[in-house]
Amino acid sequence: MSKGQSNAEFGRSAQHINFGTRIVEMARRLARFSESSDGLTCTFFSPAHKATASQLREWMLSAALQAEIDAMGNVIGRYHGSPAATKSVIVASHYDTVINGGQFDGRFGILTALVVAEYLSDVGRRLPFHLDVVAFSEEEGVRFALPYLGSGAIAGRFEEAALESRDGNGIRLADILGVSGPSTIRALARPANALAGYLEVHIEQGPVLLEKELPVGVVTSIAGACRFHITISGVAGHAGTVPMARRHDAAAAAAEIILAVEKRCGAAPTLVGTVGRLAVPAGAINVIPGRCELSLDVRAADDATRDAAVVDILRSIDEISARRGVTTDVKEVARQPAVPCAARLQSAFANAIARMGSEPLYLSSGAGHDAAMFAGLTDIGMLFVRCGNGGISHSPLETVTEDDADFAAHVLLDTLVNLD
Amino acid sequence: MSKGQSNAEFGRSAQHINFGTRIVEMARRLARFSESSDGLTCTFFSPAHKATASQLREWMLSAALQAEIDAMGNVIGRYHGSPAATKSVIVASHYDTVINGGQFDGRFGILTALVVAEYLSDVGRRLPFHLDVVAFSEEEGVRFALPYLGSGAIAGRFEEAALESRDGNGIRLADILGVSGPSTIRALARPANALAGYLEVHIEQGPVLLEKELPVGVVTSIAGACRFHITISGVAGHAGTVPMARRHDAAAAAAEIILAVEKRCGAAPTLVGTVGRLAVPAGAINVIPGRCELSLDVRAADDATRDAAVVDILRSIDEISARRGVTTDVKEVARQPAVPCAARLQSAFANAIARMGSEPLYLSSGAGHDAAMFAGLTDIGMLFVRCGNGGISHSPLETVTEDDADFAAHVLLDTLVNLD
Repeated sequence: MSKGQSNAEFGRSAQHINFGTRIVEMARRLARFSESSDGLTCTFFSPAHKATASQLREWMLSAALQAEIDAMGNVIGRYHGSPAATKSVIVASHYDTVINGGQFDGRFGILTALVVAEYLSDVGRRLPFHLDVVAFSEEEGVRFALPYLGSGAIAGRFEEAALESRDGNGIRLADILGVSGPSTIRALARPANALAGYLEVHIEQGPVLLEKELPVGVVTSIAGACRFHITISGVAGHAGTVPMARRHDAAAAAAEIILAVEKRCGAAPTLVGTVGRLAVPAGAINVIPGRCELSLDVRAADDATRDAAVVDILRSIDEISARRGVTTDVKEVARQPAVPCAARLQSAFANAIARMGSEPLYLSSGAGHDAAMFAGLTDIGMLFVRCGNGGISHSPLETVTEDDADFAAHVLLDTLVNLD
Repeated sequence: MSKGQSNAEFGRSAQHINFGTRIVEMARRLARFSESSDGLTCTFFSPAHKATASQLREWMLSAALQAEIDAMGNVIGRYHGSPAATKSVIVASHYDTVINGGQFDGRFGILTALVVAEYLSDVGRRLPFHLDVVAFSEEEGVRFALPYLGSGAIAGRFEEAALESRDGNGIRLADILGVSGPSTIRALARPANALAGYLEVHIEQGPVLLEKELPVGVVTSIAGACRFHITISGVAGHAGTVPMARRHDAAAAAAEIILAVEKRCGAAPTLVGTVGRLAVPAGAINVIPGRCELSLDVRAADDATRDAAVVDILRSIDEISARRGVTTDVKEVARQPAVPCAARLQSAFANAIARMGSEPLYLSSGAGHDAAMFAGLTDIGMLFVRCGNGGISHSPLETVTEDDADFAAHVLLDTLVNLD
């Protein structure tokens, strides 16, 4: 029915379609596969994770996509392009979650791509490229403290040493994957000449679009995180007998570090610093903590701002440790550079938004995204969607309205149809 | 061989006996029963705990004591007094430990009493009272967050509601004990008219005797702890996207509370305050903590000093919570009054120390002890023994020298023989 229509005519003909209700409904259905009974937890290769992958593959098959689950747990659904098509545009995001996370982080982008591919397939509209809807298996780094396992494999960035990593129960990644060697994972990598671009729709996970009263925004760049594991060793002792002045309390040192991070990162506009993990291992009410473990994550819109903050924080940690007579081991586990989105894909999203009658707002991403894995391999573009509840994410309070979901899907459809 | 000897002659005849090597050696042997492979952990009714009880009972039997393990896991060895004896003097301490604790906390007092009873038995010296060497099963409160389970039962202070308490795995205390009803535990209580006193030898767990270069000291009073469980509820969020000024970070609030405790408790000489447990449950490196759990323990030599500090700390918690937009639940779980030691037993220890040629130093106990359970029921007396390594306790670094162990055992023997 769409044959012979211009791209603009095609976009108008799709306007009556409601994608939003279906996207939100599918997100709700996926959320029933969870490791925790009272929230949504879906970590790499858990039963809930495998059930989610299987459901996504089923929906892809129903949408007449060619669908498979690869060795890394990525679910890939291809909507074949016109006969002349040789390259693919990947439209993707991840389906794993943080512990007790929300229903839309990652999944929103997969489901938006899925309904758009399904519509194209339904109406028989072929594109000049293959459209690969990809659900990445792993982005959050919860199970192995290694983020981007799924997108990293497809982008050819998987590091073989990761196969020897162990989860909290001592299980090796290689054993979970059941692969005989690194060549199985290497084979998942897409060569640059097979790609015509990478697009990702994602919830903003912040308050900007909500405050601007806009349904979507165009991402200009993705901040890179600088991450550390910090272990403080003090001296354990009896809570009733060691005078305050003689203590070397690892938790009190950690407390001072947390407040130093908070203060330093409050001193520049886009800078953020978070201590997300914090524990006194085997702590007891009547024992002075001899050990405390914490994580640190620092980000900013530009690397210079972030790196300057990191230098200051590390100096504070040294000063606090020396003054308190504790030893602190600081291990840098990640330092990703900020990644720019391609100008042509920013424009493509912006033009589609304008055609939909909205204002194309440009904003940077404080969160890392799978898209960053594809930078340097192919052009990347990202579309942010407004979050409710003050922009909260990584929480059960995460929300997106059906109207905004619908708007985002129409922008994606228009963008794909009009892509060079 | 001791028949007809005066008490003073008896004391002198024992001077050549070396008790210290044996006490330290037995502590080392008990430490092999542990729940952790790389330290000493022995919590209520674990396999290691049961093995420790069994070993203690064996040693008591070898010392010709009448020995049994009661329904609460207490190991009781009676050295019968002279035919006219009707009352008992209990000499006791606990054999459970904190997680990754030391070899001497609690056990030192049991083993000192054991070698003294064994000596009395060997030489056939009867006392005008039964000597009950008791190894209490539970003092630290690790498993059920209920301290003094062992001594509380014998002192008649066991609270029946405790039977419904559950450990971290949801197992009820009643199920562990395997008792049909509270009457089994009630039957363990000793009536006041059956007791002639309670003595406890314990490591100081602090630096005072070490600094004064004295092997032992006489305890004047036992500080009571005021304890709280604190749960902070903030708002979880994405570590990269929520500006610092908009956060309601539960861990940052906890950090401020920890430093407020430290500052307030550093403001008076005998006052101490400790946050021993601290955790962001299911924390992740890229998630702003929505929840943080911590414990608080505050003590001082007198209740007025402690209670004033508690009032100030609770006011600080309210202020910090309100300012940060988090809600904090503070649950008081214990408020024990300070307990004085009986003047006649302080003198009895002091006289024995003087007879041994040392100076009787008097000091208060910042740590709680089983002895406190017997206050009001019978006279209590405590002897502290010097700790090495700066006075450290509740740590694998806990030490006592053989010489000090020997000195303490001779003081206890002399005290018992000369007791009215």
